[in-house]
Amino acid sequence: MSVLPPALQNMVDAFGLLPGVGPRTAERYAYYLLRHASDTPQKLSQALQELHSGIGYCQKTFALVPAGQELSDLYTDPRRDKKTVAVVAEPFDLVALEKTGEFHGTYHVLGGLVSPIDNIGPEELHIAELVQRVDEDGVEEIILATNASVEGESTALYIQQQLGDRKVKITRLARGLSVGVDLEYADQITLGRALEGRQAI
Amino acid sequence: MSVLPPALQNMVDAFGLLPGVGPRTAERYAYYLLRHASDTPQKLSQALQELHSGIGYCQKTFALVPAGQELSDLYTDPRRDKKTVAVVAEPFDLVALEKTGEFHGTYHVLGGLVSPIDNIGPEELHIAELVQRVDEDGVEEIILATNASVEGESTALYIQQQLGDRKVKITRLARGLSVGVDLEYADQITLGRALEGRQAI
Repeated sequence: MSVLPPALQNMVDAFGLLPGVGPRTAERYAYYLLRHASDTPQKLSQALQELHSGIGYCQKTFALVPAGQELSDLYTDPRRDKKTVAVVAEPFDLVALEKTGEFHGTYHVLGGLVSPIDNIGPEELHIAELVQRVDEDGVEEIILATNASVEGESTALYIQQQLGDRKVKITRLARGLSVGVDLEYADQITLGRALEGRQAI
Repeated sequence: MSVLPPALQNMVDAFGLLPGVGPRTAERYAYYLLRHASDTPQKLSQALQELHSGIGYCQKTFALVPAGQELSDLYTDPRRDKKTVAVVAEPFDLVALEKTGEFHGTYHVLGGLVSPIDNIGPEELHIAELVQRVDEDGVEEIILATNASVEGESTALYIQQQLGDRKVKITRLARGLSVGVDLEYADQITLGRALEGRQAI
Protein backbone atom coordinates (compact mmCIF):
# COMPACT_ATOMS: atom_id res chain seq x y z
CA MET A 1 0.00 0.00 0.00
CA SER A 2 1.49 3.28 -1.09
CA VAL A 3 1.25 6.05 1.46
CA LEU A 4 1.18 8.87 -1.10
CA PRO A 5 -1.50 9.34 -3.77
CA PRO A 6 -0.17 8.50 -7.26
CA ALA A 7 -0.36 12.11 -8.48
CA LEU A 8 1.93 13.18 -5.65
CA GLN A 9 4.24 10.19 -5.95
CA ASN A 10 4.68 10.95 -9.67
CA MET A 11 5.57 14.53 -8.82
CA VAL A 12 8.15 13.38 -6.27
CA ASP A 13 9.61 10.90 -8.76
CA ALA A 14 9.77 13.55 -11.50
CA PHE A 15 11.58 16.04 -9.26
CA GLY A 16 13.93 13.23 -8.28
CA LEU A 17 15.16 13.19 -11.90
CA LEU A 18 16.77 16.61 -11.46
CA PRO A 19 20.49 16.64 -10.67
CA GLY A 20 21.33 16.53 -6.97
CA VAL A 21 17.70 16.18 -5.91
CA GLY A 22 17.22 13.28 -3.50
CA PRO A 23 13.92 11.87 -2.23
CA ARG A 24 13.70 14.35 0.66
CA THR A 25 14.23 17.41 -1.50
CA ALA A 26 11.84 16.06 -4.13
CA GLU A 27 9.20 15.57 -1.44
CA ARG A 28 9.81 19.09 -0.20
CA TYR A 29 9.34 20.60 -3.68
CA ALA A 30 6.25 18.51 -4.39
CA TYR A 31 4.65 19.29 -1.09
CA TYR A 32 5.44 22.98 -1.43
CA LEU A 33 3.67 23.07 -4.79
CA LEU A 34 0.76 21.18 -3.32
CA ARG A 35 0.30 23.53 -0.37
CA HIS A 36 0.71 26.70 -2.34
CA ALA A 37 -2.18 26.41 -4.74
CA SER A 38 -0.90 29.36 -6.69
CA ASP A 39 0.13 29.46 -10.33
CA THR A 40 3.61 28.06 -9.63
CA PRO A 41 2.92 24.54 -10.99
CA GLN A 42 1.35 26.13 -14.07
CA LYS A 43 4.34 28.42 -14.63
CA LEU A 44 6.79 25.57 -14.21
CA SER A 45 4.81 23.31 -16.49
CA GLN A 46 4.62 25.92 -19.23
CA ALA A 47 8.31 26.76 -18.99
CA LEU A 48 9.12 23.06 -19.28
CA GLN A 49 7.02 22.65 -22.39
CA GLU A 50 8.61 25.62 -24.09
CA LEU A 51 12.14 24.85 -22.96
CA HIS A 52 13.37 22.71 -25.82
CA SER A 53 11.28 24.29 -28.56
CA GLY A 54 12.25 27.84 -27.59
CA ILE A 55 16.02 27.45 -27.70
CA GLY A 56 18.58 27.09 -30.44
CA TYR A 57 22.32 27.39 -30.82
CA CYS A 58 24.28 30.21 -32.41
CA GLN A 59 25.80 28.89 -35.65
CA LYS A 60 29.05 30.65 -34.99
CA THR A 61 29.64 30.66 -31.23
CA PHE A 62 27.29 27.83 -30.12
CA ALA A 63 25.91 30.03 -27.38
CA LEU A 64 22.21 29.59 -26.62
CA VAL A 65 19.87 31.78 -28.66
CA PRO A 66 16.09 32.06 -28.96
CA ALA A 67 14.81 29.46 -31.44
CA GLY A 68 14.99 30.64 -35.04
CA GLN A 69 17.76 33.14 -34.42
CA GLU A 70 20.91 32.24 -36.29
CA LEU A 71 23.57 34.20 -34.46
CA SER A 72 23.97 35.21 -30.83
CA ASP A 73 23.45 38.89 -29.97
CA LEU A 74 26.79 38.73 -28.19
CA TYR A 75 28.42 37.91 -31.52
CA THR A 76 26.54 40.29 -33.81
CA ASP A 77 26.81 43.28 -31.43
CA PRO A 78 29.23 45.66 -33.21
CA ARG A 79 30.63 46.81 -29.85
CA ARG A 80 32.00 43.33 -29.17
CA ASP A 81 35.51 42.62 -30.32
CA LYS A 82 35.41 39.66 -32.72
CA LYS A 83 39.20 39.39 -32.65
CA THR A 84 39.19 38.36 -28.99
CA VAL A 85 37.47 35.05 -28.29
CA ALA A 86 36.85 33.53 -24.87
CA VAL A 87 36.52 29.75 -25.15
CA VAL A 88 34.19 28.23 -22.54
CA ALA A 89 32.94 24.71 -21.94
CA GLU A 90 29.24 25.34 -21.36
CA PRO A 91 26.70 28.09 -22.16
CA PHE A 92 26.37 28.97 -18.48
CA ASP A 93 30.10 29.65 -18.19
CA LEU A 94 29.50 32.47 -20.61
CA VAL A 95 26.87 33.91 -18.28
CA ALA A 96 29.38 33.85 -15.43
CA LEU A 97 31.94 35.75 -17.51
CA GLU A 98 29.32 38.25 -18.71
CA LYS A 99 28.41 39.01 -15.11
CA THR A 100 31.91 40.33 -14.46
CA GLY A 101 31.17 43.07 -17.00
CA GLU A 102 34.87 43.12 -17.84
CA PHE A 103 34.95 41.14 -21.05
CA HIS A 104 34.12 42.84 -24.33
CA GLY A 105 35.20 40.19 -26.80
CA THR A 106 33.10 37.35 -28.18
CA TYR A 107 32.60 33.79 -26.98
CA HIS A 108 32.98 30.28 -28.28
CA VAL A 109 31.12 27.51 -26.48
CA LEU A 110 32.76 24.09 -26.80
CA GLY A 111 29.74 22.16 -25.57
CA GLY A 112 31.70 20.25 -22.95
CA LEU A 113 35.24 19.22 -22.10
CA VAL A 114 37.34 16.29 -23.27
CA SER A 115 36.59 13.52 -20.79
CA PRO A 116 37.49 9.92 -21.63
CA ILE A 117 35.53 8.65 -18.60
CA ASP A 118 32.30 10.18 -19.92
CA ASN A 119 33.18 9.08 -23.44
CA ILE A 120 33.53 12.66 -24.71
CA GLY A 121 36.31 12.97 -27.28
CA PRO A 122 37.56 16.22 -28.83
CA GLU A 123 35.62 15.51 -32.05
CA GLU A 124 32.37 15.90 -30.10
CA LEU A 125 33.26 19.46 -29.11
CA HIS A 126 33.11 22.56 -31.33
CA ILE A 127 36.89 22.75 -31.70
CA ALA A 128 37.09 22.46 -35.49
CA GLU A 129 34.63 25.36 -35.71
CA LEU A 130 36.87 27.39 -33.40
CA VAL A 131 39.90 26.83 -35.62
CA GLN A 132 37.79 27.78 -38.65
CA ARG A 133 36.67 30.94 -36.83
CA VAL A 134 40.26 31.93 -36.10
CA ASP A 135 40.94 31.89 -39.84
CA GLU A 136 37.66 33.53 -40.92
CA ASP A 137 37.46 36.31 -38.33
CA GLY A 138 41.18 36.98 -38.06
CA VAL A 139 41.10 36.25 -34.32
CA GLU A 140 44.08 37.75 -32.48
CA GLU A 141 43.60 36.40 -28.99
CA ILE A 142 42.02 33.23 -27.68
CA ILE A 143 41.34 33.15 -23.96
CA LEU A 144 40.99 29.53 -22.84
CA ALA A 145 38.41 30.03 -20.11
CA THR A 146 37.86 26.37 -19.31
CA ASN A 147 37.51 25.02 -15.78
CA ALA A 148 40.63 24.70 -13.66
CA SER A 149 40.15 20.92 -13.64
CA VAL A 150 42.03 18.05 -15.31
CA GLU A 151 39.43 17.99 -18.12
CA GLY A 152 39.63 21.75 -18.50
CA GLU A 153 43.41 21.73 -18.70
CA SER A 154 43.61 18.85 -21.16
CA THR A 155 40.95 20.38 -23.41
CA ALA A 156 42.91 23.65 -23.36
CA LEU A 157 46.07 21.77 -24.30
CA TYR A 158 44.31 20.00 -27.16
CA ILE A 159 42.96 23.28 -28.54
CA GLN A 160 46.43 24.78 -28.34
CA GLN A 161 47.78 21.89 -30.44
CA GLN A 162 44.96 22.18 -32.97
CA LEU A 163 45.70 25.86 -33.53
CA GLY A 164 49.18 24.80 -34.68
CA ASP A 165 51.42 27.67 -35.76
CA ARG A 166 48.62 30.16 -36.46
CA LYS A 167 49.62 33.67 -35.39
CA VAL A 168 47.15 33.91 -32.52
CA LYS A 169 47.92 34.77 -28.92
CA ILE A 170 46.66 32.06 -26.58
CA THR A 171 46.01 32.95 -22.95
CA ARG A 172 44.19 31.33 -20.09
CA LEU A 173 42.49 32.63 -16.96
CA ALA A 174 44.87 33.40 -14.12
CA ARG A 175 45.26 30.77 -11.42
CA GLY A 176 45.65 32.06 -7.90
CA LEU A 177 43.91 32.80 -4.65
CA SER A 178 40.17 33.41 -4.70
CA VAL A 179 39.25 36.84 -3.38
CA GLY A 180 38.78 36.73 0.39
CA VAL A 181 40.59 33.44 0.90
CA ASP A 182 42.82 33.00 3.94
CA LEU A 183 46.33 31.94 2.99
CA GLU A 184 46.37 29.21 5.61
CA TYR A 185 43.26 27.56 4.17
CA ALA A 186 44.28 27.70 0.50
CA ASP A 187 45.15 24.27 -0.92
CA GLN A 188 48.79 23.76 -1.83
CA ILE A 189 48.28 23.43 -5.59
CA THR A 190 46.40 26.74 -5.76
CA LEU A 191 49.04 28.35 -3.58
CA GLY A 192 51.78 26.93 -5.80
CA ARG A 193 50.05 28.40 -8.87
CA ALA A 194 49.58 31.73 -7.12
CA LEU A 195 53.30 31.85 -6.33
CA GLU A 196 54.25 30.83 -9.87
CA GLY A 197 52.04 33.57 -11.34
CA ARG A 198 53.00 36.27 -8.84
CA GLN A 199 52.58 39.81 -10.10
CA ALA A 200 54.63 42.97 -9.61
CA ILE A 201 52.80 45.68 -7.66
CA MET B 1 20.66 42.64 -23.57
CA SER B 2 19.79 39.37 -21.86
CA VAL B 3 22.43 36.69 -22.14
CA LEU B 4 20.00 33.78 -21.93
CA PRO B 5 17.23 33.08 -24.45
CA PRO B 6 13.76 33.84 -22.96
CA ALA B 7 12.69 30.17 -22.94
CA LEU B 8 15.66 29.34 -20.74
CA GLN B 9 15.33 32.41 -18.55
CA ASN B 10 11.68 31.52 -17.91
CA MET B 11 12.72 28.02 -16.90
CA VAL B 12 15.34 29.40 -14.51
CA ASP B 13 12.80 31.83 -13.04
CA ALA B 14 10.19 29.07 -12.64
CA PHE B 15 12.62 26.78 -10.82
CA GLY B 16 13.57 29.72 -8.63
CA LEU B 17 10.03 29.66 -7.24
CA LEU B 18 10.69 26.34 -5.51
CA PRO B 19 11.65 26.52 -1.82
CA GLY B 20 15.36 26.81 -1.17
CA VAL B 21 16.24 27.06 -4.86
CA GLY B 22 18.49 30.04 -5.59
CA PRO B 23 19.55 31.33 -9.01
CA ARG B 24 22.55 28.98 -9.24
CA THR B 25 20.55 25.86 -8.48
CA ALA B 26 17.75 26.99 -10.79
CA GLU B 27 20.28 27.46 -13.60
CA ARG B 28 21.70 24.03 -12.89
CA TYR B 29 18.29 22.37 -13.13
CA ALA B 30 17.34 24.29 -16.27
CA TYR B 31 20.61 23.56 -17.99
CA TYR B 32 20.47 19.91 -17.03
CA LEU B 33 17.05 19.60 -18.62
CA LEU B 34 18.30 21.41 -21.68
CA ARG B 35 21.33 19.19 -22.18
CA HIS B 36 19.53 15.94 -21.53
CA ALA B 37 16.99 16.01 -24.31
CA SER B 38 15.23 13.04 -22.81
CA ASP B 39 11.66 12.82 -21.62
CA THR B 40 12.43 14.39 -18.24
CA PRO B 41 10.89 17.82 -19.03
CA GLN B 42 7.82 16.04 -20.37
CA LYS B 43 7.50 13.85 -17.26
CA LEU B 44 7.90 16.84 -14.96
CA SER B 45 5.41 18.89 -16.94
CA GLN B 46 2.80 16.15 -16.88
CA ALA B 47 3.24 15.49 -13.17
CA LEU B 48 2.81 19.22 -12.52
CA GLN B 49 -0.40 19.39 -14.48
CA GLU B 50 -1.90 16.42 -12.69
CA LEU B 51 -0.64 17.40 -9.25
CA HIS B 52 -3.53 19.46 -7.97
CA SER B 53 -6.28 17.68 -9.87
CA GLY B 54 -5.11 14.22 -8.78
CA ILE B 55 -5.07 14.76 -5.04
CA GLY B 56 -7.69 15.08 -2.36
CA TYR B 57 -7.87 14.93 1.40
CA CYS B 58 -9.20 12.11 3.55
CA GLN B 59 -12.44 13.34 5.17
CA LYS B 60 -11.53 11.76 8.45
CA THR B 61 -7.75 11.94 8.84
CA PHE B 62 -6.90 14.73 6.35
CA ALA B 63 -4.12 12.60 4.92
CA LEU B 64 -3.56 12.93 1.17
CA VAL B 65 -5.59 10.55 -0.97
CA PRO B 66 -6.10 10.10 -4.74
CA ALA B 67 -8.77 12.53 -5.98
CA GLY B 68 -12.28 11.18 -5.58
CA GLN B 69 -11.39 8.83 -2.74
CA GLU B 70 -13.15 9.78 0.47
CA LEU B 71 -11.10 8.01 3.11
CA SER B 72 -7.41 7.18 3.37
CA ASP B 73 -6.38 3.54 2.94
CA LEU B 74 -4.46 3.92 6.17
CA TYR B 75 -7.73 4.64 7.93
CA THR B 76 -9.98 2.08 6.27
CA ASP B 77 -7.46 -0.78 6.55
CA PRO B 78 -9.00 -3.14 9.15
CA ARG B 79 -5.53 -4.07 10.42
CA ARG B 80 -4.94 -0.51 11.61
CA ASP B 81 -5.96 0.30 15.14
CA LYS B 82 -8.51 3.15 15.04
CA LYS B 83 -8.27 3.59 18.80
CA THR B 84 -4.67 4.78 18.58
CA VAL B 85 -4.21 8.05 16.69
CA ALA B 86 -0.91 9.70 15.83
CA VAL B 87 -1.39 13.44 15.37
CA VAL B 88 1.02 14.98 12.86
CA ALA B 89 1.38 18.47 11.44
CA GLU B 90 1.82 17.71 7.73
CA PRO B 91 1.03 14.82 5.37
CA PHE B 92 4.73 14.09 4.88
CA ASP B 93 5.23 13.60 8.62
CA LEU B 94 2.93 10.64 8.25
CA VAL B 95 5.20 9.20 5.56
CA ALA B 96 8.16 9.50 7.94
CA LEU B 97 6.29 7.60 10.67
CA GLU B 98 5.10 4.95 8.21
CA LYS B 99 8.68 4.31 7.15
CA THR B 100 9.57 3.19 10.67
CA GLY B 101 7.15 0.30 10.16
CA GLU B 102 6.48 0.38 13.89
CA PHE B 103 3.19 2.19 14.06
CA HIS B 104 -0.04 0.31 13.44
CA GLY B 105 -2.58 2.88 14.55
CA THR B 106 -4.21 5.57 12.41
CA TYR B 107 -3.21 9.16 11.72
CA HIS B 108 -4.65 12.62 12.03
CA VAL B 109 -3.09 15.39 9.97
CA LEU B 110 -3.50 18.85 11.46
CA GLY B 111 -2.51 20.70 8.30
CA GLY B 112 0.11 22.83 10.07
CA LEU B 113 1.08 24.04 13.51
CA VAL B 114 -0.13 26.99 15.54
CA SER B 115 2.16 29.85 14.55
CA PRO B 116 1.18 33.44 15.34
CA ILE B 117 4.05 34.77 13.19
CA ASP B 118 2.66 33.04 10.11
CA ASN B 119 -0.88 34.01 11.11
CA ILE B 120 -1.94 30.40 11.68
CA GLY B 121 -4.35 30.08 14.59
CA PRO B 122 -5.68 26.80 16.03
CA GLU B 123 -9.00 27.28 14.23
CA GLU B 124 -7.21 26.85 10.91
CA LEU B 125 -6.01 23.38 11.89
CA HIS B 126 -8.08 20.18 11.99
CA ILE B 127 -8.25 20.15 15.78
CA ALA B 128 -12.05 20.25 16.17
CA GLU B 129 -12.23 17.23 13.84
CA LEU B 130 -9.72 15.43 16.05
CA VAL B 131 -11.82 16.01 19.15
CA GLN B 132 -14.89 14.82 17.24
CA ARG B 133 -12.99 11.71 16.16
CA VAL B 134 -12.04 10.93 19.74
CA ASP B 135 -15.73 10.80 20.59
CA GLU B 136 -16.88 8.95 17.45
CA ASP B 137 -14.17 6.31 17.22
CA GLY B 138 -13.69 5.80 20.95
CA VAL B 139 -10.00 6.73 20.66
CA GLU B 140 -7.97 5.43 23.60
CA GLU B 141 -4.55 6.94 22.91
CA ILE B 142 -3.48 10.09 21.13
CA ILE B 143 0.19 10.33 20.26
CA LEU B 144 1.12 13.96 19.71
CA ALA B 145 3.74 13.47 17.02
CA THR B 146 4.34 17.16 16.28
CA ASN B 147 7.78 18.65 15.70
CA ALA B 148 10.03 19.21 18.70
CA SER B 149 9.83 22.98 18.06
CA VAL B 150 8.11 25.83 19.89
CA GLU B 151 5.18 25.65 17.44
CA GLY B 152 5.01 21.86 17.82
CA GLU B 153 4.98 22.06 21.60
CA SER B 154 2.39 24.83 21.79
CA THR B 155 0.10 23.06 19.33
CA ALA B 156 0.39 19.89 21.41
CA LEU B 157 -0.48 21.86 24.53
CA TYR B 158 -3.50 23.42 22.85
CA ILE B 159 -4.78 20.01 21.71
CA GLN B 160 -4.35 18.68 25.22
CA GLN B 161 -6.51 21.54 26.54
CA GLN B 162 -9.16 20.99 23.88
CA LEU B 163 -9.49 17.33 24.81
CA GLY B 164 -10.51 18.48 28.29
CA ASP B 165 -11.35 15.66 30.67
CA ARG B 166 -12.08 13.02 28.03
CA LYS B 167 -10.77 9.62 29.11
CA VAL B 168 -8.02 9.41 26.50
CA LYS B 169 -4.36 8.75 27.12
CA ILE B 170 -2.23 11.52 25.64
CA THR B 171 1.41 10.77 24.86
CA ARG B 172 4.09 12.45 22.84
CA LEU B 173 7.20 11.24 21.03
CA ALA B 174 10.19 10.71 23.31
CA ARG B 175 12.78 13.48 23.46
CA GLY B 176 16.36 12.38 23.73
CA LEU B 177 19.56 11.72 21.85
CA SER B 178 19.37 10.93 18.15
CA VAL B 179 20.81 7.54 17.32
CA GLY B 180 24.54 7.80 16.66
CA VAL B 181 24.98 11.17 18.32
CA ASP B 182 28.08 11.87 20.39
CA LEU B 183 27.24 13.03 23.90
CA GLU B 184 29.74 15.88 23.71
CA TYR B 185 28.08 17.35 20.60
CA ALA B 186 24.48 17.09 21.79
CA ASP B 187 22.94 20.48 22.58
CA GLN B 188 22.16 21.10 26.22
CA ILE B 189 18.37 21.23 25.88
CA THR B 190 18.29 17.84 24.16
CA LEU B 191 20.66 16.44 26.75
CA GLY B 192 18.48 17.86 29.53
CA ARG B 193 15.42 16.19 28.01
CA ALA B 194 17.29 12.91 27.60
CA LEU B 195 18.26 13.00 31.27
CA GLU B 196 14.74 13.90 32.33
CA GLY B 197 13.30 10.99 30.33
CA ARG B 198 15.94 8.44 31.28
CA GLN B 199 14.85 4.85 31.05
CA ALA B 200 15.58 1.79 33.19
CA ILE B 201 17.56 -0.91 31.37
